[in-house]
Amino acid sequence: MSWLSHLECARCAATFDADRVQNLCHCGGPLLVRYDLKAVVARLTPGRLAGRPASMWRYRELLPVRDDANIVTLGEGMTPLLRLPRLGAALGLAELLLKDEGVNPTGTFKARGAAAGISRAKELGITAVAMPTNGNAGGAWAAYGARAGIEVTLVMPLDAPAMSVLEATAAGARAYMVRGQITDAGAIVAKSAGAHGWFEAATLKEPYRIEGKKTMGYEIAEQLDWTLPDAILYPTGGGVGIIGIYKALLEMQELGWLPDGVKLPRLVAVQAEGCQPIVKAFREGKDVSEKWENAATVAQGIRVPKALGDFLVLHAVRATGGTCVAVSDEDTMWGLERISRLEGVFICPEGAALFGAARNLLREGWLQPDERVLLLNTGAGIKYPEILRPDLPLLDVGAAI
Amino acid sequence: MSWLSHLECARCAATFDADRVQNLCHCGGPLLVRYDLKAVVARLTPGRLAGRPASMWRYRELLPVRDDANIVTLGEGMTPLLRLPRLGAALGLAELLLKDEGVNPTGTFKARGAAAGISRAKELGITAVAMPTNGNAGGAWAAYGARAGIEVTLVMPLDAPAMSVLEATAAGARAYMVRGQITDAGAIVAKSAGAHGWFEAATLKEPYRIEGKKTMGYEIAEQLDWTLPDAILYPTGGGVGIIGIYKALLEMQELGWLPDGVKLPRLVAVQAEGCQPIVKAFREGKDVSEKWENAATVAQGIRVPKALGDFLVLHAVRATGGTCVAVSDEDTMWGLERISRLEGVFICPEGAALFGAARNLLREGWLQPDERVLLLNTGAGIKYPEILRPDLPLLDVGAAI
Repeated sequence: MSWLSHLECARCAATFDADRVQNLCHCGGPLLVRYDLKAVVARLTPGRLAGRPASMWRYRELLPVRDDANIVTLGEGMTPLLRLPRLGAALGLAELLLKDEGVNPTGTFKARGAAAGISRAKELGITAVAMPTNGNAGGAWAAYGARAGIEVTLVMPLDAPAMSVLEATAAGARAYMVRGQITDAGAIVAKSAGAHGWFEAATLKEPYRIEGKKTMGYEIAEQLDWTLPDAILYPTGGGVGIIGIYKALLEMQELGWLPDGVKLPRLVAVQAEGCQPIVKAFREGKDVSEKWENAATVAQGIRVPKALGDFLVLHAVRATGGTCVAVSDEDTMWGLERISRLEGVFICPEGAALFGAARNLLREGWLQPDERVLLLNTGAGIKYPEILRPDLPLLDVGAAI
Repeated sequence: MSWLSHLECARCAATFDADRVQNLCHCGGPLLVRYDLKAVVARLTPGRLAGRPASMWRYRELLPVRDDANIVTLGEGMTPLLRLPRLGAALGLAELLLKDEGVNPTGTFKARGAAAGISRAKELGITAVAMPTNGNAGGAWAAYGARAGIEVTLVMPLDAPAMSVLEATAAGARAYMVRGQITDAGAIVAKSAGAHGWFEAATLKEPYRIEGKKTMGYEIAEQLDWTLPDAILYPTGGGVGIIGIYKALLEMQELGWLPDGVKLPRLVAVQAEGCQPIVKAFREGKDVSEKWENAATVAQGIRVPKALGDFLVLHAVRATGGTCVAVSDEDTMWGLERISRLEGVFICPEGAALFGAARNLLREGWLQPDERVLLLNTGAGIKYPEILRPDLPLLDVGAAI
């Protein structure tokens, strides 16, 4: 069962009833889910998790769905945590790890957020949701919405990856494109939701998506036998993943599931040079970011000019002694090629940005060669058929090579 | 550790040393891997599997790799087993299940075969492999080959899915296209392998791929708490999956892991109307199939005009009281649309063929409404960006819906 307690504003700490439909706080801050962790301590130890099903629902007590019958799942989570010895050696890192979120339903980590968000929407009686998306979140919410029988409306930038459009429409979502960025799409959703009775499920405008994402943090610890990496690099658009991982780290500390006195991993928010509002705010010592104008990058999933949760990302980074860095598209494509060639993992451009970041941080001495560094790849390269254009030699029947 | 014992010809039962590089038997038959199952019985019970990692390597003792250091893994296996209540109700089946192999590295079940095959190739000192492929196997072997540092050469039909070409070349495989079918590609590989020193890894020409595939059978039983479905429907091209599942069922029987006296699931080989050599052989009461001329279907992965293991598929089907059926491309596309809309699972056309098959078998009374029917979906729909062509309404910035 779930030990869900209440919702709490991440900005002003006001509390809200979790069993009513909620979006943002009166102050405009996003709401975080709180649990009765003391009750969990008394009833669940990490050792008891081992025999549970290989999905994010193994952390059942720490997820917000009260009744099992409301869980909408496609088997998301418990993704592979891979060692990258060949690429690590090439970069000069003794222990390089990859959490591969591409091995999820719908091919990205967005499945976790959608599973949690749609399950809880079902539990609260919501029948229609709407959201802006750069693509992958839309594909995921469309899929889980279809499974739940919840109507999904999406608005996405005109240049959103074709694959997400395809999977969203295959699942029967109502989808629109806009000649603009995800922020423009968000404005259209906000303007339209009321008239249609849609629940607004935009990033952090609904409280439960982050609960799905946080399970990445639990899994990292569990898969490393309840130890932690020295640093976690994360491709940051809306930032829900990094916020979720940080939330999981704090929860695990409170639960006593981490080694006594262990240092939390330094969290590193990686953005693209063509869209780095959070990096800029970090460098300038600010608590919130400003909208990035003319945002452009090959890593479309992190092309978010202004994130609602920017202040939470900046807090998580600073609280863990982490940093924020930007990577050029050229370095991103270099990373995509290197990990494919050396480790056979075909990842999304967002994840590929992490390799350039790791290389640069190592050169600068911010990362040490003997540190355990975990890269969080958010999706599969197969969701980006347009990213490479191979041209193969053509043989006739009966030919030899 | 592995309890690998020896190799045995599936046709004439001749035995071979497993620790030497082997392809086919002298008689032309494929070689199957045998284990010292008595030793496994004494050392491993199903209950001990529960805490193991969520990959196919949880069945370590029953896989052919002797030294852990040779395991080449991307986290394949332990894929979701989903209940499909909405689609089941629509079809008239009380308990419809889907084993979703799309949630695998490289997006298909081919990852299992490649993981086993490449791991064992590495263990035996093989440095270069070559194979014909309709696409997905090539993508998988290229990926695992890259991770192992083994050179991979692929020959595929000119109309192979672009995504497989992309992932194969991303992983650094040497890839060729041929103006022909997979059988023509196979002939080119066979003709060229000797001169280049390539190990021929075509379907069933190497003994270990099937060992990876068989883990689907183990997982189905484990995920159903060591019970079995009444029928398993499988999209059949080369047929390695159905052969592997049948092999797993027999091994589990011998291990005593199945309920006493349990009936094995009736295995159903599903082919496309445009390429149904095994269905034809089944109907005609033959033990082997004849090459299907002018093979054509939207489900390219099962466009295999003549399978080396056809006699093993036919045997598995007959031994379990199963059947062989063909599905039209129209019914396949209907199935793809239905499962996307009703359950949110965006699957490959090969898997989608199973829904038409299930509907037809139910109508004919071959399947009963109260039977537990498992469909084995072999891959993710996101590997087929060309399968649907959505066209979305376009909004301007500031618009409302």
